[in-house]
Amino acid sequence: MVGAKTVTGTLYLVGVGPGDPELMTLKAVRLLDGIAVVAYPDPGGETALALRIAQTHINPHATLLPIPLPMRVERPAGQAAYDAGAVALGEQLRAGRDVAYLCEGDPLFYGSAMYLIGRLGAEFPVKIIPGVTSLTAAAAAIGRPLAARNEVLKVVPGPLPDDVLRAELDGAEAVAIIKVGRHFGRIRAVLEATGHANGATVVTHASTGREQVRPLADCQRAELPYFSMILCYRGAEDWRR
Amino acid sequence: MVGAKTVTGTLYLVGVGPGDPELMTLKAVRLLDGIAVVAYPDPGGETALALRIAQTHINPHATLLPIPLPMRVERPAGQAAYDAGAVALGEQLRAGRDVAYLCEGDPLFYGSAMYLIGRLGAEFPVKIIPGVTSLTAAAAAIGRPLAARNEVLKVVPGPLPDDVLRAELDGAEAVAIIKVGRHFGRIRAVLEATGHANGATVVTHASTGREQVRPLADCQRAELPYFSMILCYRGAEDWRR
Repeated sequence: MVGAKTVTGTLYLVGVGPGDPELMTLKAVRLLDGIAVVAYPDPGGETALALRIAQTHINPHATLLPIPLPMRVERPAGQAAYDAGAVALGEQLRAGRDVAYLCEGDPLFYGSAMYLIGRLGAEFPVKIIPGVTSLTAAAAAIGRPLAARNEVLKVVPGPLPDDVLRAELDGAEAVAIIKVGRHFGRIRAVLEATGHANGATVVTHASTGREQVRPLADCQRAELPYFSMILCYRGAEDWRR
Repeated sequence: MVGAKTVTGTLYLVGVGPGDPELMTLKAVRLLDGIAVVAYPDPGGETALALRIAQTHINPHATLLPIPLPMRVERPAGQAAYDAGAVALGEQLRAGRDVAYLCEGDPLFYGSAMYLIGRLGAEFPVKIIPGVTSLTAAAAAIGRPLAARNEVLKVVPGPLPDDVLRAELDGAEAVAIIKVGRHFGRIRAVLEATGHANGATVVTHASTGREQVRPLADCQRAELPYFSMILCYRGAEDWRR
């Protein structure tokens, strides 16, 4: 039967995990094996991380669609980039093609995929494929639980101003500080002030060949790579039992 | 060369993800395909969840080693169960056999695997294979980010006493309440008091065929299944842009 095609494609937001391609899920791999279009955030410069992670699992007939996006979203420039990205993705979806959008880690754990849901979710079906986060990959690198028993775990973005960081850290037992990068020097000073510095560990590029695990005290630089996390633990030291 | 074998086995703590067997990682699947012994927490009754998730990927020659463990660890009874489990695992490792211990979700995200690290980590090499958590699987079920931009995300165990729950929730923008189960009625009352009830969603059995997503207001029972989570969000409603 020949006729106008009115069915749109589905947008899959696909978590590709923290960096080790083997930490991709079977579901993500199966999807990439059969999908028509594979889109990914492209910060420019070297090959985009999400693409590097997933590369060997993308079927050779898929159309690759890089979405130019700055690494650090500053409004309104960053939001204009998502506007343009949504237009490019929308064209594919409207033509009836399914699109996989690759997300580092998990799509809904501090990812930028939410901006695409906002722009495309009303017009097209969106499905989320969760992935392993850098949070648990960092804990695995250290070999210590993120939090024990009934302790509260706080995930705190490093770009928050000093006074907010300090208020969030005060009294907190288990903390993961994400988006550390160029904020590292400032964050370390706050951790020293709140008494978290001693139990803090810095993990960089968790799960990859470049993974590094160091006590905070051994990191004296002012900046760390963008993919760095600080795990603080000053809860009960009896988590082992 | 024939001689006494002195090399011990390695204990792998393997995250098998939140429930959907397709959310297992390639790494977990590869490991289970070649390992000598597969151990798993066995609460008694029906087939253990971690085993059900991983079952089709375990090689048929592997020895299955159920570790009897109560679902809710109450000390000292629960700790005695881990003592006995560590003895059983230690026998295999000392005999030079690698052991995969299956963990629901991720091994270090509120799992009980830490008790095995405490008991076996000094004598045997331990490696962690991170997995997809129920946290991001629940977010995927809802289709909304756990937290947006530079918001703090709090993971709060439901068994905490009312006053502690209330103090942790006061002013919090993005909260995930885990281990809800029989504490649900009590938790709902606290969420109503702290102003989180309106933006709260209950997710049960995320990623499985029994997955349910409901606004908190639609859940009027006093208890929920053990594998339930409440995601609260009262941050900026502009996360879409």
